[in-house]
Amino acid sequence: MAHIDLGLDETKLPGISGLMRFRPETAEPLNALAEALLRAPNSLPAGERELIAAYVSGLNECRFCRDSHSAFAAAQLDEGMTLVQQVRADLDTAPVSEKLRALLRIAGAVQESGRKVTTELVAAARAQGATDVEIHDTVLIAAAFCMFNRYVDGLGTLAPDDPSGYAASARRIVERGYIDSV
Amino acid sequence: MAHIDLGLDETKLPGISGLMRFRPETAEPLNALAEALLRAPNSLPAGERELIAAYVSGLNECRFCRDSHSAFAAAQLDEGMTLVQQVRADLDTAPVSEKLRALLRIAGAVQESGRKVTTELVAAARAQGATDVEIHDTVLIAAAFCMFNRYVDGLGTLAPDDPSGYAASARRIVERGYIDSV
Repeated sequence: MAHIDLGLDETKLPGISGLMRFRPETAEPLNALAEALLRAPNSLPAGERELIAAYVSGLNECRFCRDSHSAFAAAQLDEGMTLVQQVRADLDTAPVSEKLRALLRIAGAVQESGRKVTTELVAAARAQGATDVEIHDTVLIAAAFCMFNRYVDGLGTLAPDDPSGYAASARRIVERGYIDSV
Repeated sequence: MAHIDLGLDETKLPGISGLMRFRPETAEPLNALAEALLRAPNSLPAGERELIAAYVSGLNECRFCRDSHSAFAAAQLDEGMTLVQQVRADLDTAPVSEKLRALLRIAGAVQESGRKVTTELVAAARAQGATDVEIHDTVLIAAAFCMFNRYVDGLGTLAPDDPSGYAASARRIVERGYIDSV
């Protein structure tokens, strides 16, 4: 049960869903941020952006966000959940492009601290073809999930074990996005 | 100099300002989130909410955010910068209300990890009169600054030494808020 009284059934609105219902004033900019980062037109495919979100959420050990965004990534990547699990298990050997691997390394540094992002990590991504906007968005996606993960776990919300709920959310997100699927 | 080419003079638009100019698509929800958390009507005074932001930014060692939000807090607290510095130096002895101290302890836990927020920390805040919305907002302010701090430092932006720029920003924020002062 959440640390605060959300006034709702958490089994129906687990994780961030209940928090967004509880506080619509902050839900609106949070959903707009997720939409801009993960769904808006971008040279990085939506599946790769969701993979960055899932990877950082795994590093932060936030089960609800990790399982949600793993499902959202899997639904939008040709290789599906297998690739998501390979990246989460071992980034060095996962069969992703060298550009995406370099961006995921930047995301991993951000998860520790902004000050861990080195000139070398950025140069390595650029050498693989990453643009300034892609590097910017990778840093902000990783930073944003350091927020979402702390929000969801800091208020002690429910993270369901059953994967079917995450798969249903993935269908909603892919069809309608973050703003209209609330 | 920032890790990416922002296409602007960073001495005039340091820290997050240059990033917001570079990527207006994400600046809009980020400013709306700051406005909802730090400026919108709330039973927690704006100065106390800015103090939570400054405290977390200090723990994350993000100089630009720490010095900005310390100035924003000081401008909105009767005790000014002295109190901000006392809180940042030693939360246990700083002359704040026991309610604010309990909320700042929750914020400090969030800075480490959402999973560090215990039932005991939340009960202690509630025993001092903190409401569910105040506890929610404290967690989300702390989480949001774990994002802002990583965003600003992860892209290697400039943090000026001169305090006069932060004081000028504080006047703009107090007068016009986050959305109109961009």
